[in-house]
Amino acid sequence: MTEQQMREAMARAVEEVREKNPLAPSITNTVTQDFVANAQLAVGGSAAMLYLADESESIAKVAPAFYVNMGTAMPFYEETLPRTARALYDNRTPWVLDPVGIGLSSLRTKILTQLKEFKPSIIRGNASEIIALAKLWQLITTDAGQVRGVDSTEKVSSAKTSAVALATFTGGAVAVSGEEDLVTDGEQIILCAGGSILSTKITGSGCALGGIMAIYLTVATPFIAALTATTMFNLAGTKAAAEFNAPASFKINFLDNLYELTAEDVSENFRVVGSLENMFNFNFGL
Amino acid sequence: MTEQQMREAMARAVEEVREKNPLAPSITNTVTQDFVANAQLAVGGSAAMLYLADESESIAKVAPAFYVNMGTAMPFYEETLPRTARALYDNRTPWVLDPVGIGLSSLRTKILTQLKEFKPSIIRGNASEIIALAKLWQLITTDAGQVRGVDSTEKVSSAKTSAVALATFTGGAVAVSGEEDLVTDGEQIILCAGGSILSTKITGSGCALGGIMAIYLTVATPFIAALTATTMFNLAGTKAAAEFNAPASFKINFLDNLYELTAEDVSENFRVVGSLENMFNFNFGL
Amino acid sequence: MTEQQMREAMARAVEEVREKNPLAPSITNTVTQDFVANAQLAVGGSAAMLYLADESESIAKVAPAFYVNMGTAMPFYEETLPRTARALYDNRTPWVLDPVGIGLSSLRTKILTQLKEFKPSIIRGNASEIIALAKLWQLITTDAGQVRGVDSTEKVSSAKTSAVALATFTGGAVAVSGEEDLVTDGEQIILCAGGSILSTKITGSGCALGGIMAIYLTVATPFIAALTATTMFNLAGTKAAAEFNAPASFKINFLDNLYELTAEDVSENFRVVGSLENMFNFNFGL
Repeated sequence: MTEQQMREAMARAVEEVREKNPLAPSITNTVTQDFVANAQLAVGGSAAMLYLADESESIAKVAPAFYVNMGTAMPFYEETLPRTARALYDNRTPWVLDPVGIGLSSLRTKILTQLKEFKPSIIRGNASEIIALAKLWQLITTDAGQVRGVDSTEKVSSAKTSAVALATFTGGAVAVSGEEDLVTDGEQIILCAGGSILSTKITGSGCALGGIMAIYLTVATPFIAALTATTMFNLAGTKAAAEFNAPASFKINFLDNLYELTAEDVSENFRVVGSLENMFNFNFGL
Repeated sequence: MTEQQMREAMARAVEEVREKNPLAPSITNTVTQDFVANAQLAVGGSAAMLYLADESESIAKVAPAFYVNMGTAMPFYEETLPRTARALYDNRTPWVLDPVGIGLSSLRTKILTQLKEFKPSIIRGNASEIIALAKLWQLITTDAGQVRGVDSTEKVSSAKTSAVALATFTGGAVAVSGEEDLVTDGEQIILCAGGSILSTKITGSGCALGGIMAIYLTVATPFIAALTATTMFNLAGTKAAAEFNAPASFKINFLDNLYELTAEDVSENFRVVGSLENMFNFNFGL
Repeated sequence: MTEQQMREAMARAVEEVREKNPLAPSITNTVTQDFVANAQLAVGGSAAMLYLADESESIAKVAPAFYVNMGTAMPFYEETLPRTARALYDNRTPWVLDPVGIGLSSLRTKILTQLKEFKPSIIRGNASEIIALAKLWQLITTDAGQVRGVDSTEKVSSAKTSAVALATFTGGAVAVSGEEDLVTDGEQIILCAGGSILSTKITGSGCALGGIMAIYLTVATPFIAALTATTMFNLAGTKAAAEFNAPASFKINFLDNLYELTAEDVSENFRVVGSLENMFNFNFGL
């Protein structure tokens, strides 16, 4: 895709979500559900969080997209997650997987191993998580990718090979969050700049980003959905950081910006500023 | 009741809660607990959220009111909810039921069916949920009331018959939330205006409203409690929307307004602006 | 310790946390996780919330500190909490216990009784909770310490004996939150003033305070960690209350202040203003 094509597809996705108010249900961690739901609502989507295996399974069959975040795994996730993922895969419902907390416990490892066959449309995580997932699914061999709690110990660029391997395997897209964000469909690799370091000072930024990706998945391809959510997110963060320099007021303004951003904003402020190896390097003209 | 009597009863409820700081414990969804608790605190109440069957059962016996929101049902709700509802009913503890998510799973249907005999003092939901509950409890026969996730597909007015049927059955009150809000005790049917469309852009507005109803239930009849909470809520929303036009800053101001509203504000700004069929139509003079 | 020594130790703790970004994982209630995590991030720490026994147990072995809040106990806490506390104790990982909800159910009583042998480094609660825990652990005999939901029915000073008994037993520190806050290591008893009554109008203030204590425990002794967190908290609250007089905007500004406070602020604004019995009485020069 050319830069202009991406621009147009992203603008369409932003508009279509504002028109349709699509629902993307979630199984997501208890810490950041409020932030995820409010971010989904702010971009024009609708939210519903679930825990029960039978209801997430049945909703997975009819929802236009779904968000799965491993965050605060509870004992019953052992049943809920694989059954939901199978229903998503069998019914071709596109879905986002955020493997946060990968490696923390044998239950997580077991569940994430099972999820491989249900090929998430978008995988979103920080560099450490993406590397760890590519290793767990035996798509790469490396010693990197140590995870410390929910934070990354790796740079985004270090996850490039893993991201491409995962996207190639799933046939979807992978988004690696960090100071810059990498989005790939296995062929094109885009580096998105923008956003603010203050995003790391509020809990749930990554979760909210994943939740928005699921909203855009209801109207766009995995690659465009990941790119649109990332661009909206970074633009809202850049604008908020220009007005506020402390995290709680930054977060309020960030959500307000998500609500106010238009298709035009996204399209106008997204531009290729260079390329590195086979990466395009995008930036915002703010 | 005349409009003036309602006005006076509502003013008393607002004041009494500010004086007594009453506790209304909740079993409520994990997404919006922070919002529910902060809304309860803002109007002068006290909050405590519970999951365990034995503790919610024992607290149900001594609390002055209780809030039950089906939202993010977890596996152990199967035990917790019926036991709590039975304790509430047996001890004549008034309680609010928010049947959010009705119809999403067999467990929810099973639990909600069981709750019928424990007659919630107030049932609060959107039009679809109220219609669906009236159908589930076999109080009406209709094809309407499809529920999509947590959002309503029906207009408030379409739930009038269901709301009256439910209130008549329980002997309490029913509140139907929407662009306008319907409150009925089975005899009088009040339409409350005010509030803001921005309430639909923040997660948990309905939950917070239900939580506040439980606070007012500690000092007022179900009908007055539902009416007071709805009026406080709409007034706080109308004021917030006059100052902010994006959802996150709207929410902050909305909560601040809940904290600052007085009995006088509620009484002065509540007036009958007309009647439709057997409905009174209330509005705010803002 | 002299006042000057405390001042210096607190300043060092504030700085070291800002430099190291230490992770203090939590098992904490679902209502206030967002607030706890954001408060931990605001002071420079890192957050991760857990539920599963095997993962909290394994993380308890390697984390530099840990936060346990009983809040919204779920059925699986019966396994998770004792296993985690044992791992913390066996591996000498310092940890904070917040016994919120003590006495609400037999499960809580059972779990809290088991936790005694794993000696939490800091115990934080309101006066009623501290008294109730000292009674449960048979360290005092009294009729006081009735708990009503999550609120205290006792004054901070009434918990002095219980606090000293608990701190003497654990060899750590105890912090009693209230209008004034008492911090003791069993020998020195410090009374901290400051903060704002608005803290009682937002849910989770106590939880957030406990979460911050766990962050400072990664770099300081229990006594200094409790004192530093309390001082940061009160200072942020005093400043926020000077600018905002409604709870939601107060909370936003409070979190922003936590982010902006420096070691110098803490050190400069902490001073002994008197002594009562064997208590030092500290205050802020705002």
